[in-house]
Amino acid sequence: MSKYMNSRFSGLEAYTPGEQPTDMQYVKLNTNESPYPPSDGVIAAVNSEEVSKLNLYPDPTCKALKDAIASLYGVKRENVFVSNGSDDILNFFFMAFCDEREHPVKFPSISYGFYRVYAELYGVDYKAVPLNEDFTINLADYMANDANVVIANPNAPTGIALSLDDVESIVVANPERVVLVDEAYVDFGAESAVSLTNKYKNLIVVCTYSKSRSMAGARLGFAIADAELIADLEKIKYSTNPYNINRLTMVAGIAAIKDNDYYVNNCKKVIEAREYTVKKLVNMGFEVTPSKANFIFAKSKDIGGKELYLELKKRGILVRHFDTPAICEYNRITVGSREQMDKLLLTVEHILKEKGENI
Amino acid sequence: MSKYMNSRFSGLEAYTPGEQPTDMQYVKLNTNESPYPPSDGVIAAVNSEEVSKLNLYPDPTCKALKDAIASLYGVKRENVFVSNGSDDILNFFFMAFCDEREHPVKFPSISYGFYRVYAELYGVDYKAVPLNEDFTINLADYMANDANVVIANPNAPTGIALSLDDVESIVVANPERVVLVDEAYVDFGAESAVSLTNKYKNLIVVCTYSKSRSMAGARLGFAIADAELIADLEKIKYSTNPYNINRLTMVAGIAAIKDNDYYVNNCKKVIEAREYTVKKLVNMGFEVTPSKANFIFAKSKDIGGKELYLELKKRGILVRHFDTPAICEYNRITVGSREQMDKLLLTVEHILKEKGENI
Repeated sequence: MSKYMNSRFSGLEAYTPGEQPTDMQYVKLNTNESPYPPSDGVIAAVNSEEVSKLNLYPDPTCKALKDAIASLYGVKRENVFVSNGSDDILNFFFMAFCDEREHPVKFPSISYGFYRVYAELYGVDYKAVPLNEDFTINLADYMANDANVVIANPNAPTGIALSLDDVESIVVANPERVVLVDEAYVDFGAESAVSLTNKYKNLIVVCTYSKSRSMAGARLGFAIADAELIADLEKIKYSTNPYNINRLTMVAGIAAIKDNDYYVNNCKKVIEAREYTVKKLVNMGFEVTPSKANFIFAKSKDIGGKELYLELKKRGILVRHFDTPAICEYNRITVGSREQMDKLLLTVEHILKEKGENI
Repeated sequence: MSKYMNSRFSGLEAYTPGEQPTDMQYVKLNTNESPYPPSDGVIAAVNSEEVSKLNLYPDPTCKALKDAIASLYGVKRENVFVSNGSDDILNFFFMAFCDEREHPVKFPSISYGFYRVYAELYGVDYKAVPLNEDFTINLADYMANDANVVIANPNAPTGIALSLDDVESIVVANPERVVLVDEAYVDFGAESAVSLTNKYKNLIVVCTYSKSRSMAGARLGFAIADAELIADLEKIKYSTNPYNINRLTMVAGIAAIKDNDYYVNNCKKVIEAREYTVKKLVNMGFEVTPSKANFIFAKSKDIGGKELYLELKKRGILVRHFDTPAICEYNRITVGSREQMDKLLLTVEHILKEKGENI
């Protein structure tokens, strides 16, 4: 850190994105990307005619994109916020609604690691609430109306989902607080809370094109909420970076909504590959959380989490390992295509066999 | 504002981007875009093969893009920061280096309007320093080593540039402070301070692809500075939105550097069109500041600033008018193609003639 930087950032530990090594061609199961390309409609929409208009600014109000999203989710344009990936929206949420005194925030201690980073960045009073032993959320911890609530549903890296009723009970219990439900992975089998946004003024549902919509590389996230909360987020966006969605992402985002069936079908394929892989892993002695996401959170009784991660990497398969003590025996494995999962399973089998022979 | 938002934002006035009306086809001379499309190399690089890889995250370290920029400017990768437009970098600068107590900031009272918004957003102690009567900067105001300095060079909306020597004198006078030089418009005839960045540890030069590189729609800005300052900016980026440059912008940005000659030639054409237009406007009785940017800041002795703006808009030509008292008699006119400028000049002539007849 240079001597010029605000000293309040001296203890700040930035988020660590999943590794993107380039030393060899990996089977990449570490950042929860979709194994499927964008739809044909997206590929057709981002054409050279659009590229040749890059000299012009995008529409900062994102009208056409908001209208497309609004119509898919049955809400109005004023209920939709779009930004440069859902991380961008989480960032704005912490900036807009949380602070060090009057607006504390709580979130599960095991969840998306970025929540803690945002809280530290803005000096927010936060509480990382422990999960139950089985990694489920204890609803009673979120009923006090004493802090904003951020919950990933399904949760990461466990994939465990809350029911819509449970989410609603949290929203109802916290009328003086904002409840943010991060639904990055909701399309792989969990229940979305979007339908509650026209009923409650204190709920923000955050979604992304990065997972189920095969657009991690385009950076597009959106939030659905009561118009007043959306206006607050717009105020922050217009005070930091109003043009934060580029022209090509805008047309891709609109085209993806038109091709919704393609993406719904891809989600089905991912769910099938997940259930297939879970079954095989369990047969190999793994303990696996009940995931409703496009990843599997798995622990072996025969090999440590870190060791398995390293052995897989050596063999060209990347999964995500977290050094956090409570979950260090686990690995988070992105659900790819059936072919990729077969390769993973075969490799795991080899590793376990070799390990068995060496004992 | 909802009751949930931090009350410290109640007085915040967000930035107002240039209008983007869609009611008719305008000659758009209000947001300083390039009249020229991106280079053929950029159009070729953003192809369907790249689009089909959008399911994968971009490289958050932006290695290849940084290397391309570094080689053009004769610096090292560690001296380059890239982000989602130069606004994004300005935002990070205010967050990283300015605050309400120890790190105040000063900037000219007439300059890019966003500086004030960032200062208000983060509750920074700031001083908007008046310009001289002729809109030039009084160097003596920036020599006290008592605050960070933000200067647009050329300045907006006047287009008036400081010499490299003057910029260096400010950097030298403020060793305990960071000096940010916003060079969004530097390629249209001013002197860049990039060459000073390997000499001074307290200088950040901010550049953009939005103007001279015809990529306003792609959202790509970069900063060049000592490696320590760059690392500070990276820390903020990795604590807010590490993947903020999408895959397509990344390949476009690299391709644009390869086609640098095309853009240099476009700048020449813009400069020619600017000088041509200035001459004609002066002949029509306009007062014009000596612009080194891709816009002209002009005031008529025969018609008010707001009136001219509205009359032009009625006739399908958009220029930028600011209601700020000190400059409300002026309009900022983007320099487009020669054809667009001829249309502007003809329309201005008509408006002035009509006005003369009505008196």
